[in-house]
Amino acid sequence: MRETIGFIGLGHLGLPIAANLVEAGHQLRIYNRTPGKADGLVARGAQLAPRPVDTASPGGIVVTVLWDDEALENVVTSEGFLQQLGPGGLHISMSTVLPETAQRMAALHAPHGSTYLDAPIFGRPEAAVARQLWIPVAGAAAAKDRARPLLDAMGARGVFDFGEAVGSATIVKLVGNFMIVSAARTMVEGLSMAEKNGVDPKAVVDMLTTTLFAAPIYQSYGKMIAEKTAPAMQGGIPFKDLGLFRRTAERVGSPTPISGRLHDLVGNAQT
Amino acid sequence: MRETIGFIGLGHLGLPIAANLVEAGHQLRIYNRTPGKADGLVARGAQLAPRPVDTASPGGIVVTVLWDDEALENVVTSEGFLQQLGPGGLHISMSTVLPETAQRMAALHAPHGSTYLDAPIFGRPEAAVARQLWIPVAGAAAAKDRARPLLDAMGARGVFDFGEAVGSATIVKLVGNFMIVSAARTMVEGLSMAEKNGVDPKAVVDMLTTTLFAAPIYQSYGKMIAEKTAPAMQGGIPFKDLGLFRRTAERVGSPTPISGRLHDLVGNAQT
Repeated sequence: MRETIGFIGLGHLGLPIAANLVEAGHQLRIYNRTPGKADGLVARGAQLAPRPVDTASPGGIVVTVLWDDEALENVVTSEGFLQQLGPGGLHISMSTVLPETAQRMAALHAPHGSTYLDAPIFGRPEAAVARQLWIPVAGAAAAKDRARPLLDAMGARGVFDFGEAVGSATIVKLVGNFMIVSAARTMVEGLSMAEKNGVDPKAVVDMLTTTLFAAPIYQSYGKMIAEKTAPAMQGGIPFKDLGLFRRTAERVGSPTPISGRLHDLVGNAQT
Repeated sequence: MRETIGFIGLGHLGLPIAANLVEAGHQLRIYNRTPGKADGLVARGAQLAPRPVDTASPGGIVVTVLWDDEALENVVTSEGFLQQLGPGGLHISMSTVLPETAQRMAALHAPHGSTYLDAPIFGRPEAAVARQLWIPVAGAAAAKDRARPLLDAMGARGVFDFGEAVGSATIVKLVGNFMIVSAARTMVEGLSMAEKNGVDPKAVVDMLTTTLFAAPIYQSYGKMIAEKTAPAMQGGIPFKDLGLFRRTAERVGSPTPISGRLHDLVGNAQT
């Protein structure tokens, strides 16, 4: 039996990642706001924890896959959590938040002797199932070494090291999500223009995504857009993450008019 | 000795393409507004034609690689050009123009028994030298069959057939160029945001262009943007081609706010 791991957050992405850990032989202690979501994992031997603090063991590892900054902060500051994790503890934080939130969480850990690892995830839920996640990491070298086999067990196809400064991996994630939303909306406009001019969008996608744009993002979204099965690039995660990207750019005075237009477009669609 | 080919337009892209044809053993009759640009090709056996009409032979092939719609129309309507090309003649038109300009040129050819082939080029000048061009084609099947070995000799790595309707290949080209400008400007904003937050843009490019964005456009532009050696995505071709994209979208009522923002950005930089 491998090390018991605390796991908090069974959303669309957290659930398949937790399942991969169970599959790899890890005992999990799970906290989720809606406990029913853990039923399948509990049936496979995972334990249900009534509170965040109950997922942690002294010097152990807790993984969080949470919706936003507030949810992450609520866990870290929940009663007894940092005290219970304590010296030698490791918090692998995989949510997409503001870099300064990540830095603030790291600073809350430090006096308790536990470590915060900045490890957001690139990949849709189906990529987690297929073990095709890409994970940038930033934090203390020892934390990265300790986390690595666990990230692999979660379904990482590749892990990229962005140094020791917590927040750096989150910045890469925000840049990548901005690029994804931009690519998808650009394809929507381009393929619509082609189709309305009588050119089959599938043929356009076939050419462009086997040549100049022969990349997974274009191939997967392009096919879905051409076939009208693409998930709406509206509201939800794209809206939230573009907002984080823009705040992080504005904080350092980095101009970003394209993200502004995208944010408006994605946001206007919210009802 | 292979078939003698008329060749009009020795711009940044026309020149290496013409050189590839000479290299492949074709005799060229070249017209260029600035005749001096042909010197190197003339030294290798190409002939210089004083007027567009002098590049054409009855039932022969003329290739044009021209800057814009007006330059293309000036050649096709130049004195005697269509009469000289005549029945069985083939005009391989590789400029990026409005689809309706391509259709209008095809209609001018028809009464003379010559054929217009819509064959714009994806690829920067260095891609022409490396024989890594991607060429969408649209037009009569016989014209495509006849042009194919010549397109290969020009440096095509791949040729994609978009049917018989002239203008369809041009639409694909406009969509592709819009996607290229969008991808490049998005990377500029994203990498600037990362760098100003202390994250090495080269490391960001290394991760993203070997994973989600593992495509030639992102790899080549990403490296140049990170190293501050990227060509300015301003004025010139991006501005012209975004304008053509937008007119073609507007004509069919296809909304395209992202191309509007890009067009403003690319145009504002013109001085």
